[in-house]
Amino acid sequence: MNDQPIGFIDSGVGGLTVVKEAMKQLPNENFIYLGDTARCPYGPRPKEQVIQFTWEMAHFLLNKKIKMLVIACNTATAVALDEIKEQLQIPVVGVIMPGTRAAVKATKNHRIGVIGTKGTVKSASYKRAIKEKNENTKVTSLACPKFVPIVESNQIHSSVAKKIVFETLLPLKNKHLDTLILGCTHYPLLRPVIQDAMGQDVTLIDSGAETISEVSMLLDYFNISNAENKKMGYAEFYTTGSTHLFDQIAQEWLDKGEIQSKQVTLGGTDNAS
Amino acid sequence: MNDQPIGFIDSGVGGLTVVKEAMKQLPNENFIYLGDTARCPYGPRPKEQVIQFTWEMAHFLLNKKIKMLVIACNTATAVALDEIKEQLQIPVVGVIMPGTRAAVKATKNHRIGVIGTKGTVKSASYKRAIKEKNENTKVTSLACPKFVPIVESNQIHSSVAKKIVFETLLPLKNKHLDTLILGCTHYPLLRPVIQDAMGQDVTLIDSGAETISEVSMLLDYFNISNAENKKMGYAEFYTTGSTHLFDQIAQEWLDKGEIQSKQVTLGGTDNAS
Repeated sequence: MNDQPIGFIDSGVGGLTVVKEAMKQLPNENFIYLGDTARCPYGPRPKEQVIQFTWEMAHFLLNKKIKMLVIACNTATAVALDEIKEQLQIPVVGVIMPGTRAAVKATKNHRIGVIGTKGTVKSASYKRAIKEKNENTKVTSLACPKFVPIVESNQIHSSVAKKIVFETLLPLKNKHLDTLILGCTHYPLLRPVIQDAMGQDVTLIDSGAETISEVSMLLDYFNISNAENKKMGYAEFYTTGSTHLFDQIAQEWLDKGEIQSKQVTLGGTDNAS
Repeated sequence: MNDQPIGFIDSGVGGLTVVKEAMKQLPNENFIYLGDTARCPYGPRPKEQVIQFTWEMAHFLLNKKIKMLVIACNTATAVALDEIKEQLQIPVVGVIMPGTRAAVKATKNHRIGVIGTKGTVKSASYKRAIKEKNENTKVTSLACPKFVPIVESNQIHSSVAKKIVFETLLPLKNKHLDTLILGCTHYPLLRPVIQDAMGQDVTLIDSGAETISEVSMLLDYFNISNAENKKMGYAEFYTTGSTHLFDQIAQEWLDKGEIQSKQVTLGGTDNAS
Protein backbone atom coordinates (compact mmCIF):
# COMPACT_ATOMS: atom_id res chain seq x y z
CA MET A 1 0.00 0.00 0.00
CA ASN A 2 1.59 3.19 -1.20
CA ASP A 3 0.06 6.64 -1.64
CA GLN A 4 2.95 8.16 -3.60
CA PRO A 5 1.81 9.47 -6.99
CA ILE A 6 2.25 7.81 -10.38
CA GLY A 7 4.18 10.09 -12.74
CA PHE A 8 3.27 10.72 -16.40
CA ILE A 9 5.50 12.47 -18.92
CA ASP A 10 4.77 13.56 -22.47
CA SER A 11 6.05 16.00 -25.04
CA GLY A 12 2.87 18.03 -24.52
CA VAL A 13 -0.82 17.44 -23.82
CA GLY A 14 -1.05 14.03 -25.52
CA GLY A 15 -0.31 12.07 -22.36
CA LEU A 16 -3.53 13.47 -20.90
CA THR A 17 -5.34 10.79 -22.90
CA VAL A 18 -3.44 8.24 -20.78
CA VAL A 19 -4.22 10.12 -17.57
CA LYS A 20 -7.91 10.14 -18.48
CA GLU A 21 -7.91 6.36 -18.64
CA ALA A 22 -5.89 6.19 -15.40
CA MET A 23 -8.48 8.34 -13.60
CA LYS A 24 -11.17 5.95 -14.81
CA GLN A 25 -9.43 2.64 -14.03
CA LEU A 26 -7.52 3.72 -10.91
CA PRO A 27 -9.71 6.19 -9.00
CA ASN A 28 -7.76 5.81 -5.73
CA GLU A 29 -4.37 6.65 -7.20
CA ASN A 30 -2.59 10.01 -7.19
CA PHE A 31 -1.07 11.41 -10.37
CA ILE A 32 1.54 13.95 -11.39
CA TYR A 33 1.74 14.98 -15.02
CA LEU A 34 4.47 16.86 -16.84
CA GLY A 35 4.02 18.01 -20.43
CA ASP A 36 7.05 19.49 -22.19
CA THR A 37 4.84 21.75 -24.28
CA ALA A 38 7.56 24.36 -24.82
CA ARG A 39 9.66 21.84 -26.72
CA CYS A 40 6.79 19.97 -28.40
CA PRO A 41 6.69 18.26 -30.88
CA TYR A 42 9.33 15.64 -30.12
CA GLY A 43 8.54 13.70 -33.30
CA PRO A 44 10.92 15.51 -35.70
CA ARG A 45 13.81 15.86 -33.17
CA PRO A 46 17.00 13.79 -33.26
CA LYS A 47 16.96 10.66 -31.11
CA GLU A 48 19.71 11.88 -28.74
CA GLN A 49 17.78 15.06 -28.00
CA VAL A 50 14.55 13.18 -27.26
CA ILE A 51 16.47 10.90 -24.86
CA GLN A 52 17.93 13.95 -23.09
CA PHE A 53 14.56 15.71 -22.79
CA THR A 54 12.92 12.53 -21.52
CA TRP A 55 15.55 12.16 -18.80
CA GLU A 56 14.98 15.79 -17.78
CA MET A 57 11.27 15.11 -17.41
CA ALA A 58 11.92 11.88 -15.50
CA HIS A 59 14.25 13.64 -13.04
CA PHE A 60 11.68 16.37 -12.43
CA LEU A 61 9.11 13.74 -11.40
CA LEU A 62 11.57 11.62 -9.44
CA ASN A 63 12.12 14.69 -7.25
CA LYS A 64 8.36 14.62 -6.61
CA LYS A 65 8.75 11.07 -5.19
CA ILE A 66 6.72 9.17 -7.79
CA LYS A 67 6.34 5.40 -7.26
CA MET A 68 6.04 4.55 -10.96
CA LEU A 69 6.87 6.38 -14.20
CA VAL A 70 4.67 6.21 -17.29
CA ILE A 71 6.32 7.46 -20.47
CA ALA A 72 3.02 8.55 -21.98
CA CYS A 73 4.62 9.53 -25.27
CA ASN A 74 5.34 7.13 -28.12
CA THR A 75 8.31 9.08 -29.48
CA ALA A 76 10.01 9.06 -26.07
CA THR A 77 9.09 5.42 -25.42
CA ALA A 78 10.58 4.36 -28.74
CA VAL A 79 14.01 5.82 -28.01
CA ALA A 80 14.33 6.18 -24.22
CA LEU A 81 12.26 3.49 -22.44
CA ASP A 82 14.89 0.74 -22.29
CA GLU A 83 17.59 3.04 -20.92
CA ILE A 84 15.37 4.71 -18.32
CA LYS A 85 13.79 1.44 -17.17
CA GLU A 86 17.20 -0.11 -16.71
CA GLN A 87 18.53 2.75 -14.63
CA LEU A 88 15.59 3.54 -12.34
CA GLN A 89 14.62 1.61 -9.20
CA ILE A 90 10.88 2.22 -9.72
CA PRO A 91 8.79 0.47 -12.40
CA VAL A 92 8.83 2.31 -15.74
CA VAL A 93 6.12 1.72 -18.34
CA GLY A 94 5.99 2.78 -21.98
CA VAL A 95 3.08 2.93 -24.41
CA ILE A 96 4.36 0.79 -27.29
CA MET A 97 4.14 -2.79 -25.96
CA PRO A 98 0.60 -2.40 -24.54
CA GLY A 99 -0.62 -1.03 -27.89
CA THR A 100 1.15 -3.82 -29.72
CA ARG A 101 -0.41 -6.56 -27.57
CA ALA A 102 -3.88 -5.09 -27.99
CA ALA A 103 -3.51 -4.78 -31.77
CA VAL A 104 -2.18 -8.32 -32.22
CA LYS A 105 -5.13 -9.56 -30.18
CA ALA A 106 -7.68 -7.46 -32.11
CA THR A 107 -6.69 -8.08 -35.72
CA LYS A 108 -8.44 -10.83 -37.62
CA ASN A 109 -6.94 -10.35 -41.08
CA HIS A 110 -3.40 -9.69 -39.77
CA ARG A 111 -3.14 -6.29 -41.42
CA ILE A 112 -2.33 -3.66 -38.86
CA GLY A 113 -1.73 0.02 -39.50
CA VAL A 114 0.35 2.27 -37.26
CA ILE A 115 0.14 6.05 -37.27
CA GLY A 116 2.57 8.13 -35.24
CA THR A 117 5.13 10.91 -35.31
CA LYS A 118 8.10 10.84 -37.67
CA GLY A 119 10.30 9.76 -34.75
CA THR A 120 8.07 6.84 -33.81
CA VAL A 121 7.64 5.64 -37.39
CA LYS A 122 11.38 5.98 -38.05
CA SER A 123 12.18 3.89 -34.95
CA ALA A 124 9.99 1.07 -36.39
CA SER A 125 9.28 0.08 -32.78
CA TYR A 126 5.69 -0.99 -33.38
CA LYS A 127 6.53 -2.86 -36.56
CA ARG A 128 9.34 -4.79 -34.85
CA ALA A 129 7.22 -5.56 -31.77
CA ILE A 130 4.26 -6.75 -33.87
CA LYS A 131 6.46 -8.92 -36.08
CA GLU A 132 8.05 -10.50 -33.00
CA LYS A 133 4.60 -11.52 -31.79
CA ASN A 134 3.34 -12.67 -35.17
CA GLU A 135 5.70 -12.55 -38.12
CA ASN A 136 2.85 -13.15 -40.59
CA THR A 137 1.23 -9.81 -39.81
CA LYS A 138 1.52 -7.11 -42.43
CA VAL A 139 2.29 -3.76 -40.82
CA THR A 140 1.77 -0.45 -42.63
CA SER A 141 3.18 2.61 -40.89
CA LEU A 142 2.43 6.24 -41.64
CA ALA A 143 3.89 9.37 -40.06
CA CYS A 144 1.28 12.09 -39.46
CA PRO A 145 3.40 15.14 -38.51
CA LYS A 146 0.47 17.54 -38.80
CA PHE A 147 -1.68 15.89 -36.10
CA VAL A 148 0.23 16.94 -32.95
CA PRO A 149 0.19 20.68 -33.80
CA ILE A 150 -3.60 20.47 -34.35
CA VAL A 151 -4.04 19.02 -30.86
CA GLU A 152 -1.53 21.32 -29.12
CA SER A 153 -3.23 24.39 -30.60
CA ASN A 154 -6.65 23.03 -29.54
CA GLN A 155 -7.98 22.98 -33.11
CA ILE A 156 -9.40 19.45 -32.89
CA HIS A 157 -12.97 20.49 -33.65
CA SER A 158 -12.09 22.66 -36.64
CA SER A 159 -12.96 21.86 -40.24
CA VAL A 160 -9.30 22.33 -41.14
CA ALA A 161 -8.44 19.51 -38.73
CA LYS A 162 -10.94 17.23 -40.44
CA LYS A 163 -9.53 18.02 -43.85
CA ILE A 164 -5.95 17.40 -42.74
CA VAL A 165 -6.82 14.09 -41.07
CA PHE A 166 -8.75 12.81 -44.13
CA GLU A 167 -5.97 13.80 -46.52
CA THR A 168 -3.17 12.44 -44.33
CA LEU A 169 -4.81 9.03 -43.86
CA LEU A 170 -5.67 8.60 -47.55
CA PRO A 171 -2.63 6.35 -48.26
CA LEU A 172 -3.97 3.83 -45.71
CA LYS A 173 -7.42 3.51 -47.27
CA ASN A 174 -6.61 0.77 -49.80
CA LYS A 175 -4.45 -1.33 -47.45
CA HIS A 176 -7.35 -3.49 -46.15
CA LEU A 177 -6.39 -2.78 -42.52
CA ASP A 178 -8.79 -4.05 -39.88
CA THR A 179 -6.83 -2.52 -36.97
CA LEU A 180 -5.09 0.84 -36.62
CA ILE A 181 -2.81 1.72 -33.73
CA LEU A 182 -3.02 5.34 -32.60
CA GLY A 183 0.72 5.35 -32.02
CA CYS A 184 0.88 8.82 -30.51
CA THR A 185 -0.89 9.76 -27.30
CA HIS A 186 -2.14 12.99 -28.89
CA TYR A 187 -4.21 11.11 -31.46
CA PRO A 188 -7.10 9.89 -29.25
CA LEU A 189 -8.13 13.55 -29.04
CA LEU A 190 -8.76 13.27 -32.80
CA ARG A 191 -10.34 9.83 -32.51
CA PRO A 192 -13.81 10.61 -33.95
CA VAL A 193 -12.28 12.23 -37.04
CA ILE A 194 -9.76 9.41 -37.48
CA GLN A 195 -12.56 6.83 -37.17
CA ASP A 196 -14.61 8.69 -39.81
CA ALA A 197 -11.63 8.84 -42.14
CA MET A 198 -10.75 5.14 -41.76
CA GLY A 199 -14.33 3.83 -41.69
CA GLN A 200 -16.28 2.20 -38.87
CA ASP A 201 -14.96 -1.30 -39.62
CA VAL A 202 -11.41 -0.45 -38.53
CA THR A 203 -10.66 -1.06 -34.84
CA LEU A 204 -8.70 1.85 -33.40
CA ILE A 205 -6.21 0.89 -30.68
CA ASP A 206 -5.56 3.59 -28.11
CA SER A 207 -2.09 2.68 -26.85
CA GLY A 208 -2.50 4.93 -23.84
CA ALA A 209 -5.67 3.27 -22.62
CA GLU A 210 -4.03 -0.13 -23.01
CA THR A 211 -1.06 1.15 -21.04
CA ILE A 212 -3.21 1.73 -17.98
CA SER A 213 -4.13 -1.97 -17.88
CA GLU A 214 -0.40 -2.64 -17.63
CA VAL A 215 -0.01 0.02 -14.92
CA SER A 216 -2.89 -1.54 -12.98
CA MET A 217 -1.33 -4.99 -13.24
CA LEU A 218 2.12 -3.75 -12.17
CA LEU A 219 0.68 -1.89 -9.16
CA ASP A 220 -0.67 -5.25 -8.00
CA TYR A 221 2.41 -7.21 -9.05
CA PHE A 222 4.79 -4.97 -7.09
CA ASN A 223 2.23 -4.49 -4.33
CA ILE A 224 2.37 -0.69 -4.53
CA SER A 225 -1.25 0.21 -5.24
CA ASN A 226 -3.01 2.77 -3.08
CA ALA A 227 -5.78 0.27 -2.48
CA GLU A 228 -6.66 1.27 1.06
CA ASN A 229 -6.98 4.94 0.31
CA LYS A 230 -10.63 5.79 0.83
CA LYS A 231 -10.29 9.24 -0.71
CA MET A 232 -10.43 9.96 -4.40
CA GLY A 233 -6.93 10.47 -5.77
CA TYR A 234 -5.48 13.89 -6.58
CA ALA A 235 -3.78 15.04 -9.76
CA GLU A 236 -1.15 17.75 -10.28
CA PHE A 237 -0.20 19.15 -13.67
CA TYR A 238 3.01 20.81 -14.84
CA THR A 239 3.87 22.20 -18.24
CA THR A 240 6.95 23.86 -19.70
CA GLY A 241 4.69 25.96 -21.94
CA SER A 242 1.58 28.12 -21.65
CA THR A 243 -0.52 27.12 -18.66
CA HIS A 244 -3.54 28.83 -20.19
CA LEU A 245 -3.69 26.65 -23.29
CA PHE A 246 -2.73 23.54 -21.29
CA ASP A 247 -5.51 24.09 -18.75
CA GLN A 248 -8.06 24.69 -21.51
CA ILE A 249 -7.25 21.39 -23.23
CA ALA A 250 -6.94 19.45 -19.95
CA GLN A 251 -10.28 20.72 -18.64
CA GLU A 252 -12.15 19.85 -21.79
CA TRP A 253 -10.49 16.46 -22.22
CA LEU A 254 -10.46 15.20 -18.63
CA ASP A 255 -13.82 16.71 -17.72
CA LYS A 256 -12.91 16.87 -14.02
CA GLY A 257 -13.60 20.53 -13.34
CA GLU A 258 -11.07 23.34 -13.17
CA ILE A 259 -7.41 22.51 -13.71
CA GLN A 260 -4.58 24.84 -12.75
CA SER A 261 -1.27 23.68 -14.08
CA LYS A 262 2.04 25.15 -12.99
CA GLN A 263 4.73 26.30 -15.39
CA VAL A 264 8.18 24.83 -14.85
CA THR A 265 11.54 25.10 -16.56
CA LEU A 266 13.50 22.00 -17.46
CA GLY A 267 17.25 21.59 -18.12
CA GLY A 268 17.76 23.71 -21.21
CA THR A 269 14.14 24.46 -22.04
CA ASP A 270 14.32 25.71 -25.57
CA ASN A 271 11.24 27.77 -26.23
CA ALA A 272 12.37 28.61 -29.71
CA SER A 273 12.00 25.06 -31.08
CA MET B 1 14.60 -13.39 -25.73
CA ASN B 2 14.38 -16.58 -23.75
CA ASP B 3 13.23 -20.04 -24.84
CA GLN B 4 13.04 -21.56 -21.35
CA PRO B 5 9.57 -22.89 -20.57
CA ILE B 6 6.89 -21.24 -18.45
CA GLY B 7 5.86 -23.51 -15.57
CA PHE B 8 2.28 -24.16 -14.47
CA ILE B 9 1.26 -25.92 -11.27
CA ASP B 10 -2.16 -27.02 -10.06
CA SER B 11 -3.68 -29.47 -7.64
CA GLY B 12 -4.87 -31.51 -10.63
CA VAL B 13 -6.18 -30.92 -14.15
CA GLY B 14 -7.77 -27.51 -13.48
CA GLY B 15 -4.67 -25.55 -14.47
CA LEU B 16 -5.09 -26.95 -17.98
CA THR B 17 -7.74 -24.27 -18.51
CA VAL B 18 -4.95 -21.72 -17.96
CA VAL B 19 -2.59 -23.60 -20.30
CA LYS B 20 -5.28 -23.63 -22.99
CA GLU B 21 -5.43 -19.85 -22.91
CA ALA B 22 -1.61 -19.67 -22.83
CA MET B 23 -1.38 -21.81 -25.98
CA LYS B 24 -3.82 -19.43 -27.67
CA GLN B 25 -2.28 -16.12 -26.57
CA LEU B 26 1.40 -17.19 -26.55
CA PRO B 27 1.90 -19.65 -29.41
CA ASN B 28 5.70 -19.26 -29.44
CA GLU B 29 6.20 -20.09 -25.77
CA ASN B 30 7.14 -23.44 -24.25
CA PHE B 31 5.20 -24.84 -21.29
CA ILE B 32 5.69 -27.38 -18.52
CA TYR B 33 2.68 -28.42 -16.49
CA LEU B 34 2.53 -30.30 -13.21
CA GLY B 35 -0.79 -31.47 -11.74
CA ASP B 36 -0.72 -32.94 -8.25
CA THR B 37 -3.65 -35.22 -9.07
CA ALA B 38 -2.70 -37.82 -6.46
CA ARG B 39 -3.26 -35.29 -3.67
CA CYS B 40 -6.19 -33.42 -5.29
CA PRO B 41 -8.37 -31.73 -4.08
CA TYR B 42 -6.35 -29.11 -2.20
CA GLY B 43 -9.51 -27.19 -1.24
CA PRO B 44 -10.32 -28.99 2.03
CA ARG B 45 -6.67 -29.32 3.20
CA PRO B 46 -5.11 -27.23 5.97
CA LYS B 47 -3.29 -24.10 4.84
CA GLU B 48 0.16 -25.32 5.97
CA GLN B 49 -0.19 -28.50 3.94
CA VAL B 50 -1.23 -26.61 0.78
CA ILE B 51 1.81 -24.33 1.20
CA GLN B 52 4.09 -27.38 1.56
CA PHE B 53 2.62 -29.15 -1.50
CA THR B 54 2.85 -25.96 -3.56
CA TRP B 55 6.53 -25.57 -2.70
CA GLU B 56 7.13 -29.20 -3.70
CA MET B 57 5.53 -28.53 -7.09
CA ALA B 58 7.48 -25.30 -7.51
CA HIS B 59 10.79 -27.05 -6.79
CA PHE B 60 10.01 -29.78 -9.31
CA LEU B 61 9.56 -27.16 -12.03
CA LEU B 62 12.50 -25.02 -10.94
CA ASN B 63 14.67 -28.08 -11.60
CA LYS B 64 13.28 -28.01 -15.14
CA LYS B 65 14.68 -24.46 -15.55
CA ILE B 66 11.42 -22.58 -15.96
CA LYS B 67 11.65 -18.82 -16.57
CA MET B 68 8.33 -17.96 -14.92
CA LEU B 69 6.00 -19.80 -12.53
CA VAL B 70 2.21 -19.65 -12.83
CA ILE B 71 0.35 -20.90 -9.78
CA ALA B 72 -2.66 -22.01 -11.83
CA CYS B 73 -4.64 -22.99 -8.73
CA ASN B 74 -6.73 -20.60 -6.66
CA THR B 75 -6.35 -22.54 -3.42
CA ALA B 76 -2.56 -22.51 -3.71
CA THR B 77 -2.48 -18.87 -4.86
CA ALA B 78 -4.55 -17.81 -1.86
CA VAL B 79 -2.16 -19.25 0.71
CA ALA B 80 1.26 -19.60 -0.97
CA LEU B 81 1.70 -16.92 -3.67
CA ASP B 82 3.19 -14.16 -1.48
CA GLU B 83 5.75 -16.46 0.13
CA ILE B 84 6.84 -18.13 -3.11
CA LYS B 85 6.99 -14.86 -5.06
CA GLU B 86 9.15 -13.29 -2.38
CA GLN B 87 11.63 -16.14 -2.31
CA LEU B 88 12.08 -16.94 -6.01
CA GLN B 89 14.23 -14.99 -8.45
CA ILE B 90 11.89 -15.61 -11.41
CA PRO B 91 8.50 -13.88 -11.81
CA VAL B 92 5.67 -15.73 -10.05
CA VAL B 93 2.04 -15.16 -11.03
CA GLY B 94 -1.14 -16.24 -9.27
CA VAL B 95 -4.73 -16.39 -10.52
CA ILE B 96 -6.54 -14.25 -7.94
CA MET B 97 -5.52 -10.68 -8.82
CA PRO B 98 -6.13 -11.07 -12.58
CA GLY B 99 -9.62 -12.46 -11.89
CA THR B 100 -10.28 -9.65 -9.44
CA ARG B 101 -9.24 -6.92 -11.88
CA ALA B 102 -11.40 -8.41 -14.64
CA ALA B 103 -14.45 -8.72 -12.38
CA VAL B 104 -14.17 -5.18 -11.01
CA LYS B 105 -13.93 -3.95 -14.60
CA ALA B 106 -16.89 -6.07 -15.77
CA THR B 107 -19.48 -5.45 -13.06
CA LYS B 108 -22.03 -2.70 -13.60
CA ASN B 109 -24.23 -3.19 -10.52
CA HIS B 110 -21.27 -3.83 -8.16
CA ARG B 111 -22.53 -7.24 -7.06
CA ILE B 112 -19.91 -9.86 -7.71
CA GLY B 113 -20.13 -13.55 -6.86
CA VAL B 114 -17.13 -15.78 -6.24
CA ILE B 115 -17.24 -19.57 -6.40
CA GLY B 116 -14.25 -21.63 -5.36
CA THR B 117 -12.97 -24.40 -3.13
CA LYS B 118 -13.46 -24.33 0.63
CA GLY B 119 -9.83 -23.23 1.02
CA THR B 120 -10.18 -20.31 -1.41
CA VAL B 121 -13.47 -19.13 0.08
CA LYS B 122 -12.11 -19.44 3.64
CA SER B 123 -9.07 -17.35 2.71
CA ALA B 124 -11.42 -14.54 1.58
CA SER B 125 -8.70 -13.55 -0.89
CA TYR B 126 -11.08 -12.48 -3.66
CA LYS B 127 -13.36 -10.62 -1.31
CA ARG B 128 -10.47 -8.68 0.21
CA ALA B 129 -8.93 -7.90 -3.18
CA ILE B 130 -12.25 -6.73 -4.66
CA LYS B 131 -13.02 -4.55 -1.63
CA GLU B 132 -9.57 -2.96 -1.86
CA LYS B 133 -10.32 -1.96 -5.43
CA ASN B 134 -13.86 -0.82 -4.76
CA GLU B 135 -15.18 -0.94 -1.23
CA ASN B 136 -18.75 -0.36 -2.40
CA THR B 137 -18.92 -3.68 -4.18
CA LYS B 138 -21.01 -6.41 -2.56
CA VAL B 139 -19.21 -9.76 -2.74
CA THR B 140 -21.02 -13.07 -2.25
CA SER B 141 -18.77 -16.13 -1.93
CA LEU B 142 -19.80 -19.77 -2.18
CA ALA B 143 -17.69 -22.88 -1.75
CA CYS B 144 -18.50 -25.60 -4.30
CA PRO B 145 -16.59 -28.64 -2.98
CA LYS B 146 -18.34 -31.06 -5.34
CA PHE B 147 -17.14 -29.41 -8.56
CA VAL B 148 -13.46 -30.44 -8.54
CA PRO B 149 -14.20 -34.18 -8.14
CA ILE B 150 -16.63 -33.98 -11.11
CA VAL B 151 -13.86 -32.53 -13.28
CA GLU B 152 -11.07 -34.80 -12.03
CA SER B 153 -13.20 -37.89 -12.72
CA ASN B 154 -14.07 -36.55 -16.19
CA GLN B 155 -17.81 -36.50 -15.50
CA ILE B 156 -18.36 -32.98 -16.83
CA HIS B 157 -20.85 -34.03 -19.50
CA SER B 158 -22.97 -36.22 -17.19
CA SER B 159 -26.51 -35.42 -16.09
CA VAL B 160 -25.38 -35.87 -12.48
CA ALA B 161 -22.87 -33.05 -13.00
CA LYS B 162 -25.62 -30.78 -14.26
CA LYS B 163 -27.84 -31.59 -11.29
CA ILE B 164 -25.03 -30.95 -8.79
CA VAL B 165 -24.07 -27.63 -10.41
CA PHE B 166 -27.67 -26.37 -10.48
CA GLU B 167 -28.30 -27.36 -6.86
CA THR B 168 -24.98 -25.99 -5.58
CA LEU B 169 -25.44 -22.59 -7.24
CA LEU B 170 -29.04 -22.15 -6.09
CA PRO B 171 -28.07 -19.90 -3.12
CA LEU B 172 -26.59 -17.38 -5.58
CA LYS B 173 -29.72 -17.09 -7.73
CA ASN B 174 -31.47 -14.34 -5.73
CA LYS B 175 -28.34 -12.22 -5.10
CA HIS B 176 -28.74 -10.08 -8.24
CA LEU B 177 -25.15 -10.77 -9.29
CA ASP B 178 -24.12 -9.50 -12.72
CA THR B 179 -20.62 -11.01 -12.54
CA LEU B 180 -19.41 -14.37 -11.23
CA ILE B 181 -15.74 -15.23 -10.76
CA LEU B 182 -14.87 -18.85 -11.53
CA GLY B 183 -12.44 -18.84 -8.61
CA CYS B 184 -11.06 -22.31 -9.25
CA THR B 185 -9.21 -23.25 -12.42
CA HIS B 186 -11.21 -26.49 -12.66
CA TYR B 187 -14.48 -24.63 -13.13
CA PRO B 188 -14.09 -23.39 -16.73
CA LEU B 189 -14.43 -27.07 -17.72
CA LEU B 190 -17.98 -26.80 -16.33
CA ARG B 191 -18.56 -23.36 -17.85
CA PRO B 192 -21.58 -24.16 -20.07
CA VAL B 193 -23.43 -25.80 -17.15
CA ILE B 194 -22.52 -22.96 -14.76
CA GLN B 195 -23.70 -20.39 -17.34
CA ASP B 196 -27.01 -22.24 -17.71
CA ALA B 197 -27.46 -22.41 -13.96
CA MET B 198 -26.68 -18.70 -13.41
CA GLY B 199 -28.50 -17.40 -16.51
CA GLN B 200 -27.11 -15.78 -19.64
CA ASP B 201 -27.07 -12.27 -18.12
CA VAL B 202 -24.32 -13.11 -15.65
CA THR B 203 -20.77 -12.47 -16.90
CA LEU B 204 -18.51 -15.38 -15.97
CA ILE B 205 -14.90 -14.41 -15.26
CA ASP B 206 -12.34 -17.09 -16.02
CA SER B 207 -9.47 -16.17 -13.70
CA GLY B 208 -7.11 -18.43 -15.58
CA ALA B 209 -7.70 -16.77 -18.94
CA GLU B 210 -7.20 -13.36 -17.33
CA THR B 211 -3.97 -14.62 -15.80
CA ILE B 212 -2.46 -15.21 -19.23
CA SER B 213 -2.88 -11.52 -20.07
CA GLU B 214 -0.74 -10.84 -17.00
CA VAL B 215 1.80 -13.48 -18.06
CA SER B 216 1.94 -11.90 -21.51
CA MET B 217 2.56 -8.43 -20.04
CA LEU B 218 5.23 -9.69 -17.65
CA LEU B 219 7.06 -11.54 -20.45
CA ASP B 220 7.33 -8.18 -22.20
CA TYR B 221 8.02 -6.21 -19.02
CA PHE B 222 10.94 -8.44 -17.98
CA ASN B 223 12.00 -8.92 -21.61
CA ILE B 224 11.91 -12.72 -21.37
CA SER B 225 9.46 -13.63 -24.11
CA ASN B 226 10.41 -16.19 -26.72
CA ALA B 227 9.51 -13.70 -29.41
CA GLU B 228 12.10 -14.66 -31.99
CA ASN B 229 11.31 -18.36 -31.87
CA LYS B 230 9.89 -19.21 -35.26
CA LYS B 231 8.74 -22.67 -34.18
CA MET B 232 5.49 -23.40 -32.39
CA GLY B 233 6.10 -23.91 -28.69
CA TYR B 234 6.17 -27.33 -27.02
CA ALA B 235 4.34 -28.49 -23.91
CA GLU B 236 5.26 -31.19 -21.40
CA PHE B 237 2.84 -32.61 -18.84
CA TYR B 238 3.50 -34.25 -15.49
CA THR B 239 1.04 -35.66 -13.00
CA THR B 240 1.38 -37.32 -9.62
CA GLY B 241 -1.71 -39.45 -10.38
CA SER B 242 -3.06 -41.58 -13.22
CA THR B 243 -1.58 -40.58 -16.55
CA HIS B 244 -4.45 -42.29 -18.36
CA LEU B 245 -7.19 -40.11 -16.89
CA PHE B 246 -4.98 -36.99 -17.08
CA ASP B 247 -4.24 -37.57 -20.79
CA GLN B 248 -7.91 -38.17 -21.54
CA ILE B 249 -8.98 -34.88 -19.97
CA ALA B 250 -6.01 -32.94 -21.39
CA GLN B 251 -6.60 -34.22 -24.93
CA GLU B 252 -10.28 -33.34 -24.91
CA TRP B 253 -9.80 -29.96 -23.27
CA LEU B 254 -6.70 -28.70 -25.09
CA ASP B 255 -7.67 -30.21 -28.45
CA LYS B 256 -4.02 -30.35 -29.57
CA GLY B 257 -3.79 -34.01 -30.49
CA GLU B 258 -2.33 -36.81 -28.41
CA ILE B 259 -0.90 -35.96 -25.01
CA GLN B 260 1.37 -38.30 -23.09
CA SER B 261 1.93 -37.13 -19.56
CA LYS B 262 4.59 -38.59 -17.28
CA GLN B 263 3.92 -39.72 -13.75
CA VAL B 264 6.15 -38.25 -11.06
CA THR B 265 6.42 -38.53 -7.29
CA LEU B 266 6.65 -35.42 -5.14
CA GLY B 267 7.98 -35.02 -1.57
CA GLY B 268 5.60 -37.11 0.44
CA THR B 269 3.01 -37.87 -2.25
CA ASP B 270 0.05 -39.13 -0.30
CA ASN B 271 -2.04 -41.23 -2.66
CA ALA B 272 -4.53 -42.09 0.03
CA SER B 273 -5.98 -38.57 0.34
